[in-house]
Amino acid sequence: MGRIIVEVMPKPEILDPQGKAVVGSLPRLGFDQFTAVRQGRRFELTVEGPVTDAHLAAAAEAAQTLLSNPIIEDVVSVRADGEEA
Amino acid sequence: MGRIIVEVMPKPEILDPQGKAVVGSLPRLGFDQFTAVRQGRRFELTVEGPVTDAHLAAAAEAAQTLLSNPIIEDVVSVRADGEEA
Repeated sequence: MGRIIVEVMPKPEILDPQGKAVVGSLPRLGFDQFTAVRQGRRFELTVEGPVTDAHLAAAAEAAQTLLSNPIIEDVVSVRADGEEA
Repeated sequence: MGRIIVEVMPKPEILDPQGKAVVGSLPRLGFDQFTAVRQGRRFELTVEGPVTDAHLAAAAEAAQTLLSNPIIEDVVSVRADGEEA
């Protein structure tokens, strides 16, 4: 059983209210190291057997057509679990 | 300017309706390679200067206390952007 990780983030120019809310609360919890926070989504797609190039290609296409909204989001990474982002 | 990636996923035993909805729609779009899909969250935390161990420790703590709900979610990765997940 193989796993593919797909990561989707809001486009930089898009307002990210959730990220703003987080960066606003961090100092109240004593975290003052972070100047900005953005929040996106992470998908784990399971396939039978090891991950192949064909699986990765299908995951990349699914990322564009279903897992992300290309108008407001970027697919930042599609990789076999355990590989460098 | 350094960036830290924090990844949070629902605990395996937790129902993931969004993941179920995605895995249900994929075959209708011609994707039949995927046996399961789970959806979580990905955070990008920006820090001034390069990422240090202290930054990573703070991000790991923030991940537990603010970025995730420890009852239903696991923090699966805290890393400097560009490093292996």
